[in-house]
Amino acid sequence: MPTPATRGPGRRPGGPDTRGEILAAARAEFAEQSYAGTTIRAIAARAGVDPALVHHYFGTKRYLFTACLDIPLDPGEVIARLAAAPASGRGAVMVRLFLEVWSDAAWRAPIVALIRSATTEPEAAAVLRQFLEEVMTPAVRPMLDGDGVDLRLQLAISQLIGIAIVRHVVGASPLAQATVDELVDTVGPVVQHYLDGS
Amino acid sequence: MPTPATRGPGRRPGGPDTRGEILAAARAEFAEQSYAGTTIRAIAARAGVDPALVHHYFGTKRYLFTACLDIPLDPGEVIARLAAAPASGRGAVMVRLFLEVWSDAAWRAPIVALIRSATTEPEAAAVLRQFLEEVMTPAVRPMLDGDGVDLRLQLAISQLIGIAIVRHVVGASPLAQATVDELVDTVGPVVQHYLDGS
Repeated sequence: MPTPATRGPGRRPGGPDTRGEILAAARAEFAEQSYAGTTIRAIAARAGVDPALVHHYFGTKRYLFTACLDIPLDPGEVIARLAAAPASGRGAVMVRLFLEVWSDAAWRAPIVALIRSATTEPEAAAVLRQFLEEVMTPAVRPMLDGDGVDLRLQLAISQLIGIAIVRHVVGASPLAQATVDELVDTVGPVVQHYLDGS
Repeated sequence: MPTPATRGPGRRPGGPDTRGEILAAARAEFAEQSYAGTTIRAIAARAGVDPALVHHYFGTKRYLFTACLDIPLDPGEVIARLAAAPASGRGAVMVRLFLEVWSDAAWRAPIVALIRSATTEPEAAAVLRQFLEEVMTPAVRPMLDGDGVDLRLQLAISQLIGIAIVRHVVGASPLAQATVDELVDTVGPVVQHYLDGS
């Protein structure tokens, strides 16, 4: 793909492949620069498009990063639903949102693929790490109080990831047969405990 | 490898490859028959050795199964240490035992490989499932009281697996930097909560 330097100042308007080209440029930038070091401007430059077109297709950097992960998780929606819940109900909301995503096989497949990749490819592990450290943790942190917020939040997420693996990858009974409601009842208080730091 | 029928009634004494041949026979039997349906006698017959030799090398079926998993977890030791702890301290014991295994890179590698395999190979997922359902859960179940013991135990194990993945595969901070003691303090009460069913 030509760089802006070789293309000159002219920038292409959006075409049928523009979305895919922006995604490819974004994946390359995130891999080279990390999440924090990547700008929409640099991604646009690499894709040879106007930054406004990147915003048009993907909204903010956070959404673009999630699109690069190719997982059907909308961190904006997660954060909005957590923020809308009463503080004492956020554990249950988090468990329900997460389990509903995993309950859909079509949504589950790319997440399992990402976990599998993370066990073999340092780049895939780095992408997941950045997603946790630089996207989810800072977004949820302001809702929480007390010491060790980041650690507690990651322990809550760990609980959910472990359940997803034992339930959907390993398929162990009875966890694989439990309903989402049962798990919200059983695991919600644990996640709430982590969020509260109590 | 010749079957006992083609070898006749003579059985070989233990030789340099006997241990490996028993393991190969055991893996084949566990895959074909499942954990519950596999007997030491059938494994010995497939390997063309006396059942006493299987016991000599591997002890019980549970130990042989764990040897087939190729992970450095001794379920007998886990169970003995849990049984020796006061009921109120078993959550902390479980967290410490599990995290210490994962803290050793040489021990971690085969477990990560098994999780990776489980995301792609139904047979590997079945082996992990059998290990959870038919080895660990029945062994720990008698120590616990109340309703939903199996589900609670699997939720506790899920918490530990999720921590291991976020800590050692994804490497997210601050969970990756937390000490074992910190995590025993933070996660021990959660695992205890699952064990108690309180």
